[in-house]
Amino acid sequence: MRGVVLTVIALIATLSAFAKTELKWVDATELGIHGHTKQTDKSPYYRFDHTPYEGFSKGIIKHSKESAGLYITFKTNSPQVSASWETSSNSMLDNMSGIIQRGLDLYIKQNGKWEFVGVGRVPVNAKVTKYKRCIIKNLPNGENEFLLYLPIWCEIKRLEIGVNADAEIQGLPSPFRHKVVVFGSSITHGASASRAGLTYTALLSRNLGIDFVNFGFSGSCKMQPQFLEFLKGVEADAFLFDAFSNPTTDQIKERLNNFVDEMVKSHPGKPLIFLMTPFIDSINSRVYKTRITRRDTAAEMMKALSKKHKDVYLLDVKDVLGKESTIDGTHPNDLGFYRFVNAYQTKIAKILKKYGIKGK
Amino acid sequence: MRGVVLTVIALIATLSAFAKTELKWVDATELGIHGHTKQTDKSPYYRFDHTPYEGFSKGIIKHSKESAGLYITFKTNSPQVSASWETSSNSMLDNMSGIIQRGLDLYIKQNGKWEFVGVGRVPVNAKVTKYKRCIIKNLPNGENEFLLYLPIWCEIKRLEIGVNADAEIQGLPSPFRHKVVVFGSSITHGASASRAGLTYTALLSRNLGIDFVNFGFSGSCKMQPQFLEFLKGVEADAFLFDAFSNPTTDQIKERLNNFVDEMVKSHPGKPLIFLMTPFIDSINSRVYKTRITRRDTAAEMMKALSKKHKDVYLLDVKDVLGKESTIDGTHPNDLGFYRFVNAYQTKIAKILKKYGIKGK
Repeated sequence: MRGVVLTVIALIATLSAFAKTELKWVDATELGIHGHTKQTDKSPYYRFDHTPYEGFSKGIIKHSKESAGLYITFKTNSPQVSASWETSSNSMLDNMSGIIQRGLDLYIKQNGKWEFVGVGRVPVNAKVTKYKRCIIKNLPNGENEFLLYLPIWCEIKRLEIGVNADAEIQGLPSPFRHKVVVFGSSITHGASASRAGLTYTALLSRNLGIDFVNFGFSGSCKMQPQFLEFLKGVEADAFLFDAFSNPTTDQIKERLNNFVDEMVKSHPGKPLIFLMTPFIDSINSRVYKTRITRRDTAAEMMKALSKKHKDVYLLDVKDVLGKESTIDGTHPNDLGFYRFVNAYQTKIAKILKKYGIKGK
Repeated sequence: MRGVVLTVIALIATLSAFAKTELKWVDATELGIHGHTKQTDKSPYYRFDHTPYEGFSKGIIKHSKESAGLYITFKTNSPQVSASWETSSNSMLDNMSGIIQRGLDLYIKQNGKWEFVGVGRVPVNAKVTKYKRCIIKNLPNGENEFLLYLPIWCEIKRLEIGVNADAEIQGLPSPFRHKVVVFGSSITHGASASRAGLTYTALLSRNLGIDFVNFGFSGSCKMQPQFLEFLKGVEADAFLFDAFSNPTTDQIKERLNNFVDEMVKSHPGKPLIFLMTPFIDSINSRVYKTRITRRDTAAEMMKALSKKHKDVYLLDVKDVLGKESTIDGTHPNDLGFYRFVNAYQTKIAKILKKYGIKGK
């Protein structure tokens, strides 16, 4: 009963907020969707078109349609910004907020920097998939530039931005230069930042002004032949790999050498930067042993590979995460990602700069 | 269809994990529930008995039954620790993980310090309220001490700890000394840490060895007469207040002086420490103005009150949170709470020490 009353109150509040100001709604596709390697012809909100590659699992196909890493950017003189969006009804997970899974995350440019503004919240209810929210109002007068991150764990079916009826709105090109494809696990995908703008790919993009493309596939980044096939053909200026989180030690032994050799052949002269997976010591002796063995195997193989290929790098900062930095023993929380980015950002930027890859 | 298959697989995996080892289950109430000011006769898992006080809202009554801040502690020589628990079906929110809302958070003592072990995960589905999980296995041989935090956003109906059938398990007294009651808002309640052990009251308790009792009532910490009535009678060694997040400026003007005077009268010689609410600058000019006015009002009144009463303190560290430290513009994420605790912990400890309140 109380829930119903609250829902009605919320509904009235929402309606009256919208009633006060007449809005016009602009489809996000007109403003431009960014953050892909390349827009698919299936949906502008898909990260990746799996159809040319056979043998992908259902999980990978599901993740390929999620909008992780995608964003729009626009300028408007509207004193408020609203959004109306519809998502798939993918089940939610308990180790991420609903906001990062289906909500929106808005930034504004101030003094040349992107500053967090607010989020588009969602009810935690698998069946509700349509949302309409005022994300921010009472904005500074005049024209402002915005960056809106899409959710990481659902498909976007539709997204419209609502501005005051008498305001102007215009899509902008991506504020980030180049394309650095980041192929990785759930950690790259974004688990478990609290909102989409706090994933490490988003943090690196804002901090360095370079477009780090989120190609994180939770649980599925195992250097499979299908992914290799895609990565060989993709247009990118550089590659970053979180490649040692998902495969077994045996898979690394089987696949890593060929994966790197093939990538070097397909992308001569481009940097291929491998990051060692950050993890906390597990008290579970078997998990701990598995992680250490995998890390040591990867490190040893990468040592040889980076000697063999001049553009292949391993970045391996020890004990990056520190205490209290995961939600569940595996996935960094916001403190973990903050430390992770702090530990790796300068090293990544330094390598990229050697190849002429730098932000504005 | 795929969901069903996954559920069946998960079920088989869970059953087979349990099938391998015969477990015995011990009710948590036999081990002892800690973290209250006083156990109610309604349920050992309620934080607070609202019944002696008239006029509490339904929201406050709901929160009073939640297990935020409660924990159990035990020692066992079992090589694994499992839990079986049942919660209320409170609706979940999108600005916190499912894990903090209904899951469990386990720590182990190593070299005299509490170290994170793992979580008891939950499906994000309001209707599922019974869970059985192995939280950790392959533990170091011999006897280990554990600290298990209960969820912050639901009622616990039942909690049992599962250890190997041939193992010993024994409840322990709270590892934390004294009682510091922390009366506050959603921020004190725990929104939006990623798990229960990362709320600031839990962090302070582990860091200082002092029992900070979570008396956070999301949205409802307004120095109401009913809360004052309770706080006047409660047995505690000190009080910490996050009292300026929820009330309006007018409510602060109306209630703060009387609230403090009455608390001083009821708890002579005990420290009453007020924390200024940490917040990030909002780009919403109206929200910003409201927050600043409220902060300035509270600061001015507290200045006079701390002059009037020798045991009344205001701790007000500016710009504690910094960038990227909230999930939604209001609630600190794990990075925010980390910075918050770093900024305030030493100052709090210093005051408490003057009154003989310190950890082991």
